Amino acid sequence: MSTIEMIEAAATRLQGHARLTPMLTSPFLDDIGGRQVLVKPECLQHTGSFKFRGAWSALTHLDPEVRARGVLAYSSGNHAQGVAMAAKLLGTRAVIIMPSDAPQLKIENTRALGADVVLYERGVEAREDIGERLSRDQGLTLIRPYDEPLVIAGQGTCGLEIAEQAAALGVTSGDVLACCGGGGLTSGIALALEKHAPGMRARPVEPENYDDVTRSLVSGKRETNATEAGGLCDAILTPSPGKLTFPILSRLSGPGIVVTEDEALHAMALAYLRLKIVAEPGGAVALAAALFHSDELEGDAVVAVISGGNADSAIFHKALEKYV
Amino acid sequence: MSTIEMIEAAATRLQGHARLTPMLTSPFLDDIGGRQVLVKPECLQHTGSFKFRGAWSALTHLDPEVRARGVLAYSSGNHAQGVAMAAKLLGTRAVIIMPSDAPQLKIENTRALGADVVLYERGVEAREDIGERLSRDQGLTLIRPYDEPLVIAGQGTCGLEIAEQAAALGVTSGDVLACCGGGGLTSGIALALEKHAPGMRARPVEPENYDDVTRSLVSGKRETNATEAGGLCDAILTPSPGKLTFPILSRLSGPGIVVTEDEALHAMALAYLRLKIVAEPGGAVALAAALFHSDELEGDAVVAVISGGNADSAIFHKALEKYV
Repeated sequence: MSTIEMIEAAATRLQGHARLTPMLTSPFLDDIGGRQVLVKPECLQHTGSFKFRGAWSALTHLDPEVRARGVLAYSSGNHAQGVAMAAKLLGTRAVIIMPSDAPQLKIENTRALGADVVLYERGVEAREDIGERLSRDQGLTLIRPYDEPLVIAGQGTCGLEIAEQAAALGVTSGDVLACCGGGGLTSGIALALEKHAPGMRARPVEPENYDDVTRSLVSGKRETNATEAGGLCDAILTPSPGKLTFPILSRLSGPGIVVTEDEALHAMALAYLRLKIVAEPGGAVALAAALFHSDELEGDAVVAVISGGNADSAIFHKALEKYV
Repeated sequence: MSTIEMIEAAATRLQGHARLTPMLTSPFLDDIGGRQVLVKPECLQHTGSFKFRGAWSALTHLDPEVRARGVLAYSSGNHAQGVAMAAKLLGTRAVIIMPSDAPQLKIENTRALGADVVLYERGVEAREDIGERLSRDQGLTLIRPYDEPLVIAGQGTCGLEIAEQAAALGVTSGDVLACCGGGGLTSGIALALEKHAPGMRARPVEPENYDDVTRSLVSGKRETNATEAGGLCDAILTPSPGKLTFPILSRLSGPGIVVTEDEALHAMALAYLRLKIVAEPGGAVALAAALFHSDELEGDAVVAVISGGNADSAIFHKALEKYV
């Protein structure tokens, strides 16, 4: 069970290790979105995504002897890199289970950060099963990507920063949009806002066809996507909301927003052009919602988290060619 | 005459208006550079370059009645946008004289920020002459791009942040590389480091064929480039060091470093890939020096300022195609 106290404790552990990402703005984006648009660029976090926060939170909380035996994670790429870098900095081994169709850049980076990468075929083997076997056989501690209280607490530190940075810009109410896969980031932010920015509300944003969280918030139970593979927004394609994250989202978050893949590409192009940052498709869906779904938002201002920037260059080219 | 007191006063005026850009790092860049590489991404500053600092410093120091009559600037694009946005935020008029071959994006942005843009032909008319005529006829105050003490003071605030952020990462000695045109940024940083990080040394970095500052530091007098137009690094192509900046650089900065245009493109690609930020060619030369001219550097760490990110997309594509 994640609590605000766990998030605040994680913030202390992250101090000086995770990067305090800035809050960006552009009058050009305000014009498009029709309200003040604040952007929290977690693509500038270590390893290019917010995932380093949760990984560092979890690994620094482990008993040193347990941590010394190594850690294990399954991930399409961003959690992988976050865990690999945290393990490297803490001097322990990381084994990462990745789908063979994960972006090549993410696989290469994870290896370059010193992790042992084990590839599996999506739809043939369940990554959870491989993970449990390796964990048992090799004494590795599994660091789940989102259904893990310490990981949620780490991601929640992003929400603490949003509350403080938005207030410094005079913004204390409005929607905070988070790119949402399993819900670790969104639920962590929701918990942080509940105490530190009670006028603000976390909302999950998902790509078309992978809107399990949005549908679950409507139905009140954990819905599942028809497919797991094949979308452009690889970073946030999870089959259903987490067991731990969904109750938090149900209690605290506003309705989900669903954007098209083209809207995500367009947001990538605008992040490049107006903010000078690199977003990956899954990392750009929240900005897409802020810019292109104004009618679904409330308030004079909106915060959009860009959750990651590990874009495959072919897709980045495509976004720029189409929209710049 | 710029002083450290002017820089510290400018920092107070900039507080809450300019963006405190973060300090970025990547283990991948450390490997390439062979030492700890710290990157100060001023491409994330308002209007996509450090120029907003100097513009805000100068405009906020003007007598309100003088400021209300409007300001004038000549610029290939980044100073233009900085002055245009500062004028807009302060509710006054900006007239910007830009070369007709300036990047289209920079001309469009300057107009979109509310400035009146006057185009001139490079090599036919001197922008200084047009500026003086307009200034006299319309009562506008000229904001020089670098040879202006208040502008140098504004750019120096970047140096204050570097001193503090580098120290927080344990770095108190080494070279601080700045992309250098007329020398406003480099000289401002040099003054800031002299007091706040005396173990660190500012060094100008220039592109091939536009190495006037580097040659001037060797000869001891202000040398001139053979040509002003035509280079890839449009942001930093000035004919010679400034009258005010050169004495500061002579006294405080280390030797200049000259990089090739291909090295600048390569640095742009690595900034995209490893830091998730967008640099323009002229804004990437300092990072290019940090990564590819290790043998010319001293110390275990180096700081590189990415001075701007207003890249034309065709050139950005080229950099990625060639080097990612």
